[in-house]
Amino acid sequence: MTEIKTTFIKDMKFVAMTTSGNKIVMDTLKENGAGATPMELLLAALTGCTGMDIVSILKKMQLEFSKLEIVVKGEKSEEHPKIYKKIKLIYKLYGNLPPDKVKNAIELSINKYCSVSNMLKSAAEITYEYQILDSEQ
Amino acid sequence: MTEIKTTFIKDMKFVAMTTSGNKIVMDTLKENGAGATPMELLLAALTGCTGMDIVSILKKMQLEFSKLEIVVKGEKSEEHPKIYKKIKLIYKLYGNLPPDKVKNAIELSINKYCSVSNMLKSAAEITYEYQILDSEQ
Repeated sequence: MTEIKTTFIKDMKFVAMTTSGNKIVMDTLKENGAGATPMELLLAALTGCTGMDIVSILKKMQLEFSKLEIVVKGEKSEEHPKIYKKIKLIYKLYGNLPPDKVKNAIELSINKYCSVSNMLKSAAEITYEYQILDSEQ
Repeated sequence: MTEIKTTFIKDMKFVAMTTSGNKIVMDTLKENGAGATPMELLLAALTGCTGMDIVSILKKMQLEFSKLEIVVKGEKSEEHPKIYKKIKLIYKLYGNLPPDKVKNAIELSINKYCSVSNMLKSAAEITYEYQILDSEQ
């Protein structure tokens, strides 16, 4: 059982506290880093979830990388509820990695292990691409 | 279009950066506040999303409250992918509020306006309860 307690602060600001003692500040979209929007958190969660899978799967495959970045883009519905209809993940891996194994790791994550993608895929179409780059870049 | 860029730090730690400049640290479940887990972020996002709706709807109803807390509990599947099968929201509102209007605000949020609940409800059963408490508590 995962439990979170969230408290209203003021205006539209809320702070969530996890049982493991992590504080998450949320707010409506502003330019000053006042807090992430709830919908931004969904995309962040997706990158973290699949990212952890990739790290874990590549380790099991005994493949090393020097850097890993994941960019995610979410396209919202124009009507209420403004859910993401399309989500695109772009994986950037730095290192000497075989493309087929990277692809396999990503598919294992998105389709089997990643809890977040498996919760969101009933609502949004999730696509991905990946780039394997030189470690020097 | 919402865009997030997430970078692998080390072990299982990732940092997501939103376009609005909010940093979200993620990690596997630890006791030291090292970072929220991606699945914790989903629940936090849900409380923030519905919380902002409640604030907005009660304001339109010209109803005042002194405090608002939302507790959320998520029950995960035991098999991969370990998605939430059941999510329960507990709204605690402090003030002299008519229960029927509070219920109405919550239902409007969960069913119509809240993007996060409307993304998660295809995967999880979302239930709620609410408590209206004295402002002095």
